[in-house]
Amino acid sequence: MIAGHHLLGMRGVTTDSIYGILATAQGFKAISQRKIKKVPSLRGRTILNVFYENSTRTRVSFELAAKRLSADGVNISASGSSVSKGESLLDMAQTLNAMKADAVIIRHPSSGAPHFLADRIDARIINAGDGLHEHPTQALLDIMTIWEKFDELEGLNVAIIGDIKHSRVARSNLLAMRTLGMNVRVAGPATLLPRDLAAVYGCEVCESVDEAVEGAHVVMSLRLQQERMTAGMLPSLREYAIEYGINAKTLERTRPEAILMHPGPVNRGVELSPDIVDGGRSVILDQVENGVAIRCAVLYLILGSSQQ
Amino acid sequence: MIAGHHLLGMRGVTTDSIYGILATAQGFKAISQRKIKKVPSLRGRTILNVFYENSTRTRVSFELAAKRLSADGVNISASGSSVSKGESLLDMAQTLNAMKADAVIIRHPSSGAPHFLADRIDARIINAGDGLHEHPTQALLDIMTIWEKFDELEGLNVAIIGDIKHSRVARSNLLAMRTLGMNVRVAGPATLLPRDLAAVYGCEVCESVDEAVEGAHVVMSLRLQQERMTAGMLPSLREYAIEYGINAKTLERTRPEAILMHPGPVNRGVELSPDIVDGGRSVILDQVENGVAIRCAVLYLILGSSQQ
Amino acid sequence: MIAGHHLLGMRGVTTDSIYGILATAQGFKAISQRKIKKVPSLRGRTILNVFYENSTRTRVSFELAAKRLSADGVNISASGSSVSKGESLLDMAQTLNAMKADAVIIRHPSSGAPHFLADRIDARIINAGDGLHEHPTQALLDIMTIWEKFDELEGLNVAIIGDIKHSRVARSNLLAMRTLGMNVRVAGPATLLPRDLAAVYGCEVCESVDEAVEGAHVVMSLRLQQERMTAGMLPSLREYAIEYGINAKTLERTRPEAILMHPGPVNRGVELSPDIVDGGRSVILDQVENGVAIRCAVLYLILGSSQQ
Repeated sequence: MIAGHHLLGMRGVTTDSIYGILATAQGFKAISQRKIKKVPSLRGRTILNVFYENSTRTRVSFELAAKRLSADGVNISASGSSVSKGESLLDMAQTLNAMKADAVIIRHPSSGAPHFLADRIDARIINAGDGLHEHPTQALLDIMTIWEKFDELEGLNVAIIGDIKHSRVARSNLLAMRTLGMNVRVAGPATLLPRDLAAVYGCEVCESVDEAVEGAHVVMSLRLQQERMTAGMLPSLREYAIEYGINAKTLERTRPEAILMHPGPVNRGVELSPDIVDGGRSVILDQVENGVAIRCAVLYLILGSSQQ
Repeated sequence: MIAGHHLLGMRGVTTDSIYGILATAQGFKAISQRKIKKVPSLRGRTILNVFYENSTRTRVSFELAAKRLSADGVNISASGSSVSKGESLLDMAQTLNAMKADAVIIRHPSSGAPHFLADRIDARIINAGDGLHEHPTQALLDIMTIWEKFDELEGLNVAIIGDIKHSRVARSNLLAMRTLGMNVRVAGPATLLPRDLAAVYGCEVCESVDEAVEGAHVVMSLRLQQERMTAGMLPSLREYAIEYGINAKTLERTRPEAILMHPGPVNRGVELSPDIVDGGRSVILDQVENGVAIRCAVLYLILGSSQQ
Repeated sequence: MIAGHHLLGMRGVTTDSIYGILATAQGFKAISQRKIKKVPSLRGRTILNVFYENSTRTRVSFELAAKRLSADGVNISASGSSVSKGESLLDMAQTLNAMKADAVIIRHPSSGAPHFLADRIDARIINAGDGLHEHPTQALLDIMTIWEKFDELEGLNVAIIGDIKHSRVARSNLLAMRTLGMNVRVAGPATLLPRDLAAVYGCEVCESVDEAVEGAHVVMSLRLQQERMTAGMLPSLREYAIEYGINAKTLERTRPEAILMHPGPVNRGVELSPDIVDGGRSVILDQVENGVAIRCAVLYLILGSSQQ
């Protein structure tokens, strides 16, 4: 359980905790399908959404989760905030603390920003993506989506394809999946694969996409951040699509029951061929739906079930 | 009635439906004048405000309407959204759908965007203005405002003045007014009058403003989009004001009980002379007030009275 | 009491009114420290936050206050509003009025904008900072913070240091402090001290910071607006810090029980040396916390206790 704790990353989150969150999220998913999508669990609690980077999906998902729990949420975005007045993260932390928020959801371009806040603030901190570091609720919603399709997570084969180096989604998933006893293979451009990946995360680094997806239960494609290319780390989009893009033919190498995942938004025709995005194996929209449920569960477990 | 339906435009909305909405809106107008401006009708329902174009009046009006019905609203604007990450409308539609919204209010620069969403999403879609196409809640609030001044809508003479070609306000009003048996005359710069207007909408195209307003019960001036001028479609602002601007003298040609309308914000001294904006015939602020009531009625009828 | 009135500035607000607000705010501060930070006092009331200038602290503080009172709030910011369509403040006022808000909180770059609104709108107006004029809730939260440390306000010595000329914070504080019988000394660059300060506000203009803080109970440093420097009104940041920056040595001249205030965000190393920002005398974070409580009190007294 994570009651009263922060959620800074998947590192150190136990198998028991993960299953506890997944089970709670199943309950909230049922609530999201009701006509009245609301429970009074967090009435009168204050949640601040502090987004230093734009993200429709993640922000809206957290915002919906807070409303479904009847919490009061206030949005702070970098544009339109004191950030443009040169306010430091330290001052922001102290200010948020003085405002007596119960939880602060933070997305920040610097790795470690949520940890910095957690050390200086009474509120519970939820990391909504920090630099190249972690994005734990994304990993949790991914695992929830896998768990809906496969009863047993332990022993599943997962292939993660793309820019591993710059992906906080990959990092959080690798940590959680290894904790859960899943087998992870990765593939991507050599410039975008950290050297120590196998040693640090216990995953298998493959030479090609075909090798990585062989016999996989789960294929997870990462979003290509197009700004990487300008930095000379990537060939053209077309070359990337040919070498690392996934299409129906790639999926033939997986298990018959394999599912296809992507954190979205997809660059159609780059990471994934358009037909498979909307194809029968795709669970991309389940990921979005489960995102709201996971964020309800995390907020509820951290704030609602504590004896603060 | 429109229970359980989308509101994509005024085309095809029957006389009965229009009067049903107007009557419901009268009830909500009374609620807006109370101290406690709130009813629990849509408690726990999720409404997404997706604005790809800026609009204070329309967004705030819908947001107030949602709050007065106790619904949970979340705002998504194009700036600060995945739009800047190159997300397509298709992906946005699928994402919104997966988030289980009950209604999506959308303003979009492309004509037909709300219809595109409606085909791909379970939520009810309300068009808050799409390209050069329609803006149905504006037409409804305009007609509510007229109905408050004239008991009988059928047979009223309406003059619509300005840039008809680029006006979704004009288009939605023309459709609704013709359904209701109102007589519509239009006048504007020749470059801004579609050729087939009379044939398609059953209105009368006039040579001059004076001709159009002769004997009118209602004079509706359209907002001049100043960006049209740079495109060479318009003479100078000054010339436009002389030829198509409305002043006290213009209004002498109307009926004594005639009212003056404008969707706002007014370019004072261009579409309307400053004195008549705040003069006795102006119902421009009634339009704003009725906007909230109409949006309450539309949300309530679509979501609240359905047996979803 | 201010029930049913506007709060446009501290000018004319009586000693009794100020103590009434402080006492009410103490009650709301206790609510902010509870688990359920919410009272139903303003349920169904509509509050518009109209911010023509960015301000995280002030906007979030008002937004939290409105939520803690269960009011419905809608945000309007200059970017993303009709302001970019050239809408005048007059038209904005009329539009807001037609939307039947109960209160409008406005921050605007023009001095007097809230008064302009107050003359044209039925809603109660709360000035959240107008040009170089006033920022009354900041003065109230400052005085609340002083009152928490010193039982008796009358006779306290306050030193206000910095750019008095451009500071609405200074102006509101000067007015309120003089009403309360506090002794105020000011110091700052000669170019940034209005000539008639002593005559108009009954304060003492000092030649140096050392002179101003001598025997002070309260040292209030103002935020340096860096844009002033480009206008040639200020020497370099470094020179400013040497001449007008406050450090531990400066504070030795004050009373032993003296407190240090700043409206935030602090330019660390400019107005204040970094050690004293977080030091034992600093009440900067109390100011932030009291800000929410003061705004709850002001909204409650203006809207909630009236017999509208």
